[in-house]
Amino acid sequence: MSEVTPPVGHKIALDCMGGDLGPAEAVAAAALAIREGIVGPEDTLILVGHEDNLRLLAMDNRILNHKRIQFRHAPGVVNPDDAAMTVIKSKRDSSMVIALEMLKAGEVEAVVSTGNTKALVAAGTIKVRPMEGAERPALAAIMPRREGHFVLLDVGANPEAKPEHLLHNAVLGSIYAQSALGIASPRVGLLTVGTEEGKGGARINRTHALLKAMGDKINYIGPVEGFDVFGDACDVVVTDGFTGNVILKTLEGLVYMVRDLIGSKVKRNPVYLAGGIAMFPLLRDLKGKLKPERYGGAPLLGLGGLVMKAHGSSNRQGISSAIRLGFEALGHGTGHRMQAGLAEANAVISANPEVV
Amino acid sequence: MSEVTPPVGHKIALDCMGGDLGPAEAVAAAALAIREGIVGPEDTLILVGHEDNLRLLAMDNRILNHKRIQFRHAPGVVNPDDAAMTVIKSKRDSSMVIALEMLKAGEVEAVVSTGNTKALVAAGTIKVRPMEGAERPALAAIMPRREGHFVLLDVGANPEAKPEHLLHNAVLGSIYAQSALGIASPRVGLLTVGTEEGKGGARINRTHALLKAMGDKINYIGPVEGFDVFGDACDVVVTDGFTGNVILKTLEGLVYMVRDLIGSKVKRNPVYLAGGIAMFPLLRDLKGKLKPERYGGAPLLGLGGLVMKAHGSSNRQGISSAIRLGFEALGHGTGHRMQAGLAEANAVISANPEVV
Repeated sequence: MSEVTPPVGHKIALDCMGGDLGPAEAVAAAALAIREGIVGPEDTLILVGHEDNLRLLAMDNRILNHKRIQFRHAPGVVNPDDAAMTVIKSKRDSSMVIALEMLKAGEVEAVVSTGNTKALVAAGTIKVRPMEGAERPALAAIMPRREGHFVLLDVGANPEAKPEHLLHNAVLGSIYAQSALGIASPRVGLLTVGTEEGKGGARINRTHALLKAMGDKINYIGPVEGFDVFGDACDVVVTDGFTGNVILKTLEGLVYMVRDLIGSKVKRNPVYLAGGIAMFPLLRDLKGKLKPERYGGAPLLGLGGLVMKAHGSSNRQGISSAIRLGFEALGHGTGHRMQAGLAEANAVISANPEVV
Repeated sequence: MSEVTPPVGHKIALDCMGGDLGPAEAVAAAALAIREGIVGPEDTLILVGHEDNLRLLAMDNRILNHKRIQFRHAPGVVNPDDAAMTVIKSKRDSSMVIALEMLKAGEVEAVVSTGNTKALVAAGTIKVRPMEGAERPALAAIMPRREGHFVLLDVGANPEAKPEHLLHNAVLGSIYAQSALGIASPRVGLLTVGTEEGKGGARINRTHALLKAMGDKINYIGPVEGFDVFGDACDVVVTDGFTGNVILKTLEGLVYMVRDLIGSKVKRNPVYLAGGIAMFPLLRDLKGKLKPERYGGAPLLGLGGLVMKAHGSSNRQGISSAIRLGFEALGHGTGHRMQAGLAEANAVISANPEVV
């Protein structure tokens, strides 16, 4: 596909201040992205945050004078518990808001941030504006399953999604799965509580009808249940930001609980310890499969520019993975396809007025 | 507490036909419940289903002439994929509907069924009727956490719960946690996507306000996130039947995926196999902690009589566990406390009209 795309570079702003591990980890992630070739020969990564601090860290990581690294000073920091409105009103000098302003002004094509999700969703929506045809962005996470991965969206941007928003999520998620997972025609499922038609309430029924009306414009396979998502039922699981966020966090809670249970028992009992050592590569594999850092970035789909949210607790691997996903998405030029997809979806919505 | 309760027996109807493993497993569960003293000296367990078949199975299990076992003939069977309306309209001779009719008529005080959830919720609501003050029942599951267990409700009865229903769920779940988990003052949390007030939308905000207005009538600790549920944040997690069902099934899907991943790798590699054998007791423990059979019964709270749903795939341990939970709940006389709790909740709802 890239044969027809001229080999121009892309510019990404990395908000270095919002993560739980601080700017040191963000700058280390930038260095990793350089070393691993994630930042291509024509690309630029702009580190946004307290500039003196960032330059010192960049020196430690030997990227201070690297030609693909630039710096932008931002004195303020968004804290994990800052309310979204506080950030928008009184943290205009923060690294998050300044990075978003750079995206708005066209200085960069994407922002990667480990900052507070709610602030990023709100500030991203207000500063960068929704893509034409979209109303609200959706946060799309890449999740592991038995074989490979699937896209789950929305994991928290829009808790009260209407059927129209869910249809938009389906279109955006499908195009994102093409770019991020390399699946030509991703199978899209609508998450609900029973796979027969009519289950799950009016909102699900209306969404199901709209998805069916899309015809061959989307590879919609129908409703799916919670059981199905880790199997091979579909590649994109569509839900509202309330359900998606609760699923994501509950699964994470379960994974940590299981890990702690195994860990504490293995430590207490020498027989388990012996067994645990023999099984160590397996447990490491499993942890790798389940750990969120594997695909550290969740894009905020449906905005006029690409905003990539990385987990607040991301380490350098997680953040560099988010940078990689950002450059990949830019390389695939998904923005135009998403806009075309939203236009098709909105035509279907207009042609299928809600029967009240 | 039982000193003041006269030692009268309780009667439970066991719907023997709806489970995935068929009536043989249900009758074996009845035999197990007898052997383990789950059915007390004054209690009666009535096996509902194809009587000739059940009597043969009871003979095999040596409970045919047991004085605490009775039989009730029902020629029809509810299938796992029967629509709720089909069951109500044209399966009146099924073991499920006949067991519910017995509850309605006062012949028994509880029904335990492995049958199709949607049919059981619909037929239970129509035949047994909601408890005074309740509008819709809620299915309450007992889930494992790091230490002990918690109650999650609603896991699928009412996907489109309103704030008033969520308040009812909180009251019912709290009283159920007292009886099933033996916690004097269960801490109640409202599941949402961010713990600061104002997150999660209007429905969550209204529910939060109502729960706070309950004052000391409920031990409400505030909003909780998906992360928190496996920790020690609260004992009752309140959500709507859509989110709860999706969580329950997604978690189950993840547990099975992890089990299969471990299983397939252990089988393929002799080093893992050796480690796996050394760790076997640990893995068995973990499986025991996570397996749904441990607490096999989810009551449909808020009905005029006790209806206990056991997982469709329950084995004899799972079904007998549901029978045990049923007798325990009857022994604790939770019905009256639930009705009093609903009255208090409805007084709070009336005193706090919605501000639109």
